[in-house]
Amino acid sequence: MEMRPDDSQMAAFEAGIKLGALYHQFTGSPLNLQNVDSLEKAIAESISVQPFVEEINVNINREMIASKLNGEFGYCELEGKMLSVALQVIHGDIRIRASMAYNKELDYPLMEINEVESLS
Amino acid sequence: MEMRPDDSQMAAFEAGIKLGALYHQFTGSPLNLQNVDSLEKAIAESISVQPFVEEINVNINREMIASKLNGEFGYCELEGKMLSVALQVIHGDIRIRASMAYNKELDYPLMEINEVESLS
Amino acid sequence: MEMRPDDSQMAAFEAGIKLGALYHQFTGSPLNLQNVDSLEKAIAESISVQPFVEEINVNINREMIASKLNGEFGYCELEGKMLSVALQVIHGDIRIRASMAYNKELDYPLMEINEVESLS
Amino acid sequence: MEMRPDDSQMAAFEAGIKLGALYHQFTGSPLNLQNVDSLEKAIAESISVQPFVEEINVNINREMIASKLNGEFGYCELEGKMLSVALQVIHGDIRIRASMAYNKELDYPLMEINEVESLS
Repeated sequence: MEMRPDDSQMAAFEAGIKLGALYHQFTGSPLNLQNVDSLEKAIAESISVQPFVEEINVNINREMIASKLNGEFGYCELEGKMLSVALQVIHGDIRIRASMAYNKELDYPLMEINEVESLS
Repeated sequence: MEMRPDDSQMAAFEAGIKLGALYHQFTGSPLNLQNVDSLEKAIAESISVQPFVEEINVNINREMIASKLNGEFGYCELEGKMLSVALQVIHGDIRIRASMAYNKELDYPLMEINEVESLS
Repeated sequence: MEMRPDDSQMAAFEAGIKLGALYHQFTGSPLNLQNVDSLEKAIAESISVQPFVEEINVNINREMIASKLNGEFGYCELEGKMLSVALQVIHGDIRIRASMAYNKELDYPLMEINEVESLS
Repeated sequence: MEMRPDDSQMAAFEAGIKLGALYHQFTGSPLNLQNVDSLEKAIAESISVQPFVEEINVNINREMIASKLNGEFGYCELEGKMLSVALQVIHGDIRIRASMAYNKELDYPLMEINEVESLS
């Protein structure tokens, strides 16, 4: 059986686009404790200009940065594992809450849908 | 009313992640008609190693490349508009067909879910 | 005749690394007039944590952003043409001033060494 | 004392641009032993279309890939440490041989000029 997508699937699709975009646009950015604030802010504001984004919160793990700083050069790179992202998108009358966070057990920056909310 | 996502929403989420990742990982790559074949192949194979991808097809528009080549230096960059991508992901018993293609009317590289298919 | 590099060549090499990195890390970022300030700041601060960077100034052309905003979705992407970057690196007793700026005649975001200065 | 750059400095600058571009364009690409060949080829061919590149060789360390594969999902990402790149650029009558390779002692993907050769 084949169907056209409904609002909940389209909202989920849009949430996925934003997290995939965020990850592959910004990981690799040179980083230490001096510029983490401005990088967090720029990532959140950049993704928030994309369609259907209601809210986004981006946190980069300072402890991981500190532990990854190169001994000789004093910086590291933004890695997926360092990112905690909370995202809300709205499509039609559906709001999706999704997130990215490091899952220690899987050793993986896991992206997930946390909630599907009907606004009507 | 709030719910946990079902397979169709998770499949849609995964499809979105892949298209957002593809776009922001590979656009900007230096490109002309000499390396378009290897770039297409690398993009398709790279995204296909990610979870839940059943099939992916990547096409870069040769005419757009030809029209964008810099007159002095003989190359351009991969732009979103040049990409046509057809993607199938499976999550649980749901297959999603999604795509990215340049929409002339919107002047935008549009990502869409084309079909939601129940495999059970 | 083959030689090992001197400080001026190493400073030039480092300047090139920073401009190539900046360009390919950050172009493609979703952008409009709301987030241009935070993106400029994050780019400058991110590149400045890399080795040998004495100073960097990053400017994104607001007029180009305004002219590139998608009519339907109200944002565009950071393009190389929008960037004006002034960079100073020091290696040994050599300071290099380099820049990236859109060259209209070539229709190209041109990277150049502007000055080689001996500090001794 | 301030000077305009000579060919050797411009060649060094161009070599740096290419290595910085390569690194920040392609690290983060999803990767396992199935797609490493196509990714290597695409990276080398993409950078080779840029100005002043005479030759480029790109090798991705298979052992590092194998050791980094995620246990659950069977892939990893291209990291700077995995890359060995040998690059030759020519500007005017100067050829520069430069490289990127993982330096174990520094735990850093080191970019270096290996030789400056006068062609006249």
